[in-house]
Amino acid sequence: MPVPAPDTRDIDFAAVVDFVTAATAPHIGAGKVADYIPDLGRVDPNQFGFAVATVDGAVHTAGDADVRFAIESISKMFTLALVLSRDDGSLWQRVHREPSGEPFNSLIQLEIEQGIPRNPFINPGAIVVTDHLHTLTGNAYDAVRTLLRDETGNPDLHADGVTHGSEAYSGDRNRALAYLMADFGNLRNPVPVALDHYFRQCSIMITCTELARAGLLLARRGRRADGTRLISADDARRITAIMTTCGTYDEAGEFAYRVGLPCKSGVGGGLLAVVPGRCAVAAWGPGLDPKGNSVAGAVALETFAAVSGCSLF
Amino acid sequence: MPVPAPDTRDIDFAAVVDFVTAATAPHIGAGKVADYIPDLGRVDPNQFGFAVATVDGAVHTAGDADVRFAIESISKMFTLALVLSRDDGSLWQRVHREPSGEPFNSLIQLEIEQGIPRNPFINPGAIVVTDHLHTLTGNAYDAVRTLLRDETGNPDLHADGVTHGSEAYSGDRNRALAYLMADFGNLRNPVPVALDHYFRQCSIMITCTELARAGLLLARRGRRADGTRLISADDARRITAIMTTCGTYDEAGEFAYRVGLPCKSGVGGGLLAVVPGRCAVAAWGPGLDPKGNSVAGAVALETFAAVSGCSLF
Amino acid sequence: MPVPAPDTRDIDFAAVVDFVTAATAPHIGAGKVADYIPDLGRVDPNQFGFAVATVDGAVHTAGDADVRFAIESISKMFTLALVLSRDDGSLWQRVHREPSGEPFNSLIQLEIEQGIPRNPFINPGAIVVTDHLHTLTGNAYDAVRTLLRDETGNPDLHADGVTHGSEAYSGDRNRALAYLMADFGNLRNPVPVALDHYFRQCSIMITCTELARAGLLLARRGRRADGTRLISADDARRITAIMTTCGTYDEAGEFAYRVGLPCKSGVGGGLLAVVPGRCAVAAWGPGLDPKGNSVAGAVALETFAAVSGCSLF
Amino acid sequence: MPVPAPDTRDIDFAAVVDFVTAATAPHIGAGKVADYIPDLGRVDPNQFGFAVATVDGAVHTAGDADVRFAIESISKMFTLALVLSRDDGSLWQRVHREPSGEPFNSLIQLEIEQGIPRNPFINPGAIVVTDHLHTLTGNAYDAVRTLLRDETGNPDLHADGVTHGSEAYSGDRNRALAYLMADFGNLRNPVPVALDHYFRQCSIMITCTELARAGLLLARRGRRADGTRLISADDARRITAIMTTCGTYDEAGEFAYRVGLPCKSGVGGGLLAVVPGRCAVAAWGPGLDPKGNSVAGAVALETFAAVSGCSLF
Repeated sequence: MPVPAPDTRDIDFAAVVDFVTAATAPHIGAGKVADYIPDLGRVDPNQFGFAVATVDGAVHTAGDADVRFAIESISKMFTLALVLSRDDGSLWQRVHREPSGEPFNSLIQLEIEQGIPRNPFINPGAIVVTDHLHTLTGNAYDAVRTLLRDETGNPDLHADGVTHGSEAYSGDRNRALAYLMADFGNLRNPVPVALDHYFRQCSIMITCTELARAGLLLARRGRRADGTRLISADDARRITAIMTTCGTYDEAGEFAYRVGLPCKSGVGGGLLAVVPGRCAVAAWGPGLDPKGNSVAGAVALETFAAVSGCSLF
Repeated sequence: MPVPAPDTRDIDFAAVVDFVTAATAPHIGAGKVADYIPDLGRVDPNQFGFAVATVDGAVHTAGDADVRFAIESISKMFTLALVLSRDDGSLWQRVHREPSGEPFNSLIQLEIEQGIPRNPFINPGAIVVTDHLHTLTGNAYDAVRTLLRDETGNPDLHADGVTHGSEAYSGDRNRALAYLMADFGNLRNPVPVALDHYFRQCSIMITCTELARAGLLLARRGRRADGTRLISADDARRITAIMTTCGTYDEAGEFAYRVGLPCKSGVGGGLLAVVPGRCAVAAWGPGLDPKGNSVAGAVALETFAAVSGCSLF
Repeated sequence: MPVPAPDTRDIDFAAVVDFVTAATAPHIGAGKVADYIPDLGRVDPNQFGFAVATVDGAVHTAGDADVRFAIESISKMFTLALVLSRDDGSLWQRVHREPSGEPFNSLIQLEIEQGIPRNPFINPGAIVVTDHLHTLTGNAYDAVRTLLRDETGNPDLHADGVTHGSEAYSGDRNRALAYLMADFGNLRNPVPVALDHYFRQCSIMITCTELARAGLLLARRGRRADGTRLISADDARRITAIMTTCGTYDEAGEFAYRVGLPCKSGVGGGLLAVVPGRCAVAAWGPGLDPKGNSVAGAVALETFAAVSGCSLF
Repeated sequence: MPVPAPDTRDIDFAAVVDFVTAATAPHIGAGKVADYIPDLGRVDPNQFGFAVATVDGAVHTAGDADVRFAIESISKMFTLALVLSRDDGSLWQRVHREPSGEPFNSLIQLEIEQGIPRNPFINPGAIVVTDHLHTLTGNAYDAVRTLLRDETGNPDLHADGVTHGSEAYSGDRNRALAYLMADFGNLRNPVPVALDHYFRQCSIMITCTELARAGLLLARRGRRADGTRLISADDARRITAIMTTCGTYDEAGEFAYRVGLPCKSGVGGGLLAVVPGRCAVAAWGPGLDPKGNSVAGAVALETFAAVSGCSLF
C-alpha cells in the first residue's frame, strides 16, 4: 500500500534558502552567547550560517555556512547512532527514552529515578551513551570523530583543544551527574575517562555544511554517505523521535510547535533538523535563548519548515 | 512554493482498516483495565474498536467502533481548543507547554514550579484549562459537551452519571493537585467547581466513530464540521505539537517512535491520533499498559501509521 | 543510682520572670503578624505575654499573660498526647518521628515518602494525628478541648468561630496535603471531616497562663493536673524529644541552640516550652520571624533558659 | 541567679559503666557492619567498647575500649570546632544549621537549596566545613589530626591508609555532592583536594577511651585539655545543639528520644555523646542499624543516659 512520498525534487531549495536567509537576517546577533563555557563566550555573535543537504546529494548554503563552531550536544545524535549500530539493546537498560521535564542538567530526577537518565540527550543520558560507546569501541571520541569525518567528507575534523579545556574547566555539574550515576552503578568506565571522551566529542569543530551532510545519515534512514547501512531504519526512526520530544533541552515542546521537525541543538549555537527521506538542515547562530537554543537558528528552521512544507504538523 | 501534500485519496483506507484489525486481533484483551476508577474496572476487556474519519467526509470503522466508553483525558484536546478559540493568550501564563518527565499526576514538579503545570495534558494542566474555560463560558462541561455534540453529530452525547460518580469517588490525587494550585493562586473558580466540571468532561461517553469525527477538527487545522473556523491553523498546530510531546502520559517518547503521529490517550482505553490535512484515527481497547495507555489501541495506531505511510518519521 | 535533680525550689521564678520581661521589652512588636490566615492578621502586634507554671503549683506571669490568642500548632502537642494515651502503637505506622528538612507545608517530601509524614508536628503529620484521634474518640476537636479545659481549669475554653472560618478560608495547602495523604490511603476519615477538626483545634483561643498550666502535663512527665496519668513517662519523653527536633517549623536547629528546651510554636504567636520535672513556660507575641515563630516569644524563652539555668546544653 | 548544676561527683560512674556493659552484652554483634566501604566490612562485628571521661579528669572504660576503629563522621564535630575557633562567621553563609529530612547523602535537597547544605553533619555540609578549614589552615587533615592528638594525648593518632583508600574507592556519592556544590560555587578548594582531606579525616583510627577524652572539649564547653579555650561557650553550645538535632543521620529524632543526649555517630560504629558540664561518653560496636548508627552503641548510650540521670528529657 505504498504512498507517494513528497519528493525533494518538488522543493526549490535554492529559493527556500534565500527566503530563510532574508527572514533570519533581523535576528542575527540576538540572544546571549553561552558564557558558562569560557571559550564559547569569545565567539563573535554576529554570525549566521545555514545549509541544506538533500538525499540526492545537493547542498545549498548561505551566510557563514563554512565557519567552524563547537558541535556540542548535536554530537549526541551521532554517539547514539554509533551505539545503536553495535548494541544488543542493552543501552536501553541504562537510559530511558522519555522527555524530561527539567532543565537538561538537573540531578533531582536522576536521583529519584536511581541513576537512570530520562533520555539520551540530556547530559547524564549522553554521558551514559558515550560511556557505552567507549566500552564497545575502546575509544568513544575516536569513533564519533571517524563517523563525522566519513559522513562530512572532511578527514581533518577534530576537537578543538581550547574548547575541550574550556568544557573541562566548567564541567562541575557534569562531574556531579557522572559521579551520581557511578554511585548508582550506571557507568562502566572510570568517571574521568567517560567525561574526557564526552567533553572531547562536544568540542569537535564543525560547519553548517558539514553538519547538514552528516545529518543525511538520518534523512537516509540509517544509510551512510557510502551507501552502506549504519543503523536500521527503525533505529533511525528512534533517533528522530527522540530528537522531536527531547532534542532542544527544556524547549522541545516549543520547537515541536514552531519548527515541527526533529531537531537537535547545541550550546555552540548549532541546530540540526532532519526531514526523513528528504534532507538535513543545519543552522548556526551563537546567540542563545534562555533555554540554550540558538535564536537565529530557530528562526531559520522555523522559516524553512514553513516555506518548504516539510513541517510535521 | 506549494508542495503537493500527500492526499487522502492516495490511501485505500478500507484496506488499511482491515489490515489494522487483523494485526491488532492478537492483542485484544491484553493489558489491565483501569481499576483506580471503580466504574472503569467493570468494562469487558475483550473489546476493540477502530475508526478513521477523513477530511473529505468518509468514515471507515471496524470492531466495536460504536460501543461507548469514557472519553477521559482525550477530552483535554477539546477543552484546550475551546479555550484557545476564546482566549487572549492569558492561558499560557497559567500553564506551560513543555513535556513533563514525571507521571501525569506528580505533585513534586508542580510544587517546585510554583503551581504552574508543565503542559495542558497532565492532570493539573488540564484542570487549569477547564478552570479557564469555565471562567470564559460560565459552564465548562456544557461547552465541551456542546462542541463534541456538534462535531460528532450526536445530539445526545453526555457524561455518564456512574462514571462521574466514580471519578469523583477516586479523585483524591486530583483534589490534591487542584488545592495545591489554588494555594499558589492558579485557580479562578472554587476547587470543587473546577473539579466537578473536569470530572464531568472526563465522564463523557463516546464511540470510536464519534471520536474520529471530532478529531477532524484538528485534521482540518481548526475548522469545524460545519466549515466555520473554531481555532486558527496555528492553534491547531499548537495542539498537535503538544499531543506529540505530551499526549500519552509518561510514554510520549515511546509513542512518538512507535506511532509517529500526534496522539492523545485516555484511561478509558481510547486513543485519538491526528494526521493534519488528512484524517483522524480513533482506537479503543480497555486494557492498559503500566503507563495508562491502551495496549490494543497502541498496536492499532502503530499499524495504521506504518501501512498508511502517515507516520511523521 | 538516683541523681539529685535540680529542684524548682532552687530557682527564684519571680525574679526570672522580671528579668525576661525587661529583656524582651525592646523586641515587642517586632516581626510580622501572620496574614495568610485573615483573622490572625488583625491582631495588635504590640502585645506580649509570659507565664511560668511550676510542677509544685505556682504560676508566675507578666504582661498580657491573660489575653487570648489562637493556639494554632501548639495544639498538636495535646492531640499527640491524647492519641498516645489511647493508642496501641499503630500511630507510628502512619507518621514518622524524624525532623523534616523542608518548610512545614511542603508536599515534595510527602510524595517521595508515599504519604507518610516525617513527624507529628509538620502540618500533614498533625492532620494524621487528628484523624487518628477522631477515629479513636469519635470527636477529635472535643477531645482536645476537653483535655485543655481540664488541664487549664478553664471550663469555657473553645475555638473561635472567626478564626476557624479564617483557617478554613485559607487552608488550601492543608487541603492539598490531606488529599494527597488520602490518595496514599493514609487518612481514615473523609478529608473534610479530618480537616474540620484540625482547623477547629487550631482555632482554640487560649492565654499564656492557661498554656503554661496545660504544658505541665509534660513537665509532670505525663501526669494530669488531677494527679492521674494520661500518658506514660516514656510517651511524655517521646513528645518532648519531638518538640526539640521538630517543634519550631524549619527553625528547630536554631531553637535548640538559642533556647535549648523542648518548644512548640504556633503561628498565632504562642510558644510553649517544657522543662521536664520542673515547669512549663508560655510566651506570646504576635509578630513572627520568616520561619513562622514568634520573635518576642523566642527572645523571652531564650532569656528564660539562660537565666534560670534550665537550658539542656 | 546561679543554679546548682548536677555534679559529676554525684554519679558513681564505675557502677554506671558496669551496668551499661551488662545491659549491652546481649546486643553485641547485632546489626550489619558497613560494607559500602570495603575496609570497614572486614571488621570483626563481635566487639564492643565503652568509655566515660569526666570533666574532673577520670576515665572509666569497659570492653574493647582501647581497640582502634575508624572515626568516620564523628570527626565532623572536631572539624566544625576548629572552623568555629578561627572563623569570622562566614561559615554560616555556606552551610545551614537545620535538621535534614533526608538520608545523609541525598542530592535532591542540595539542588533545591542551590548548593547550601542543611547542616554541617550531613556529608555535603561536612565537606564544606573541611573545605573551609583547609582554606583557613592550609591543611585541614593535619589540623584535625593535631587537635585530636592534643585532646586525646596520643601523639601517634593518624589516618589508616587502607581505610583512606577504601573511602576514596567508594566515594562516588561524595564526589557527586562535592561537584554539585562546586557547580554552585560553594567550594573554595579543588574538589579532589577538599575530598582528600575529608576522606583522610574520616579515616583517623581512634579508640573509645581517646574519643571520650576528645569529647571533653565540648563537655568543658569549649576548653581544651590544657585549659586554654578553643571555642566560646556559645559555639560549644551550638555544636551540641546541632548534634542533638542532626548528629545521627536520619535517626536524630529517635536518638533524641532514646538517648536524650547530644550524640554524633560514624559508620565505623562509634558514637560520642556529650553531657555539658559533666562528661563525654564514647561507645563502639561495628554492627549498624539500617540508618547507619551502631546498634550496641545506641543501647549503651541509652542505658547510660537512663541510669546516670543525665538524659535531657
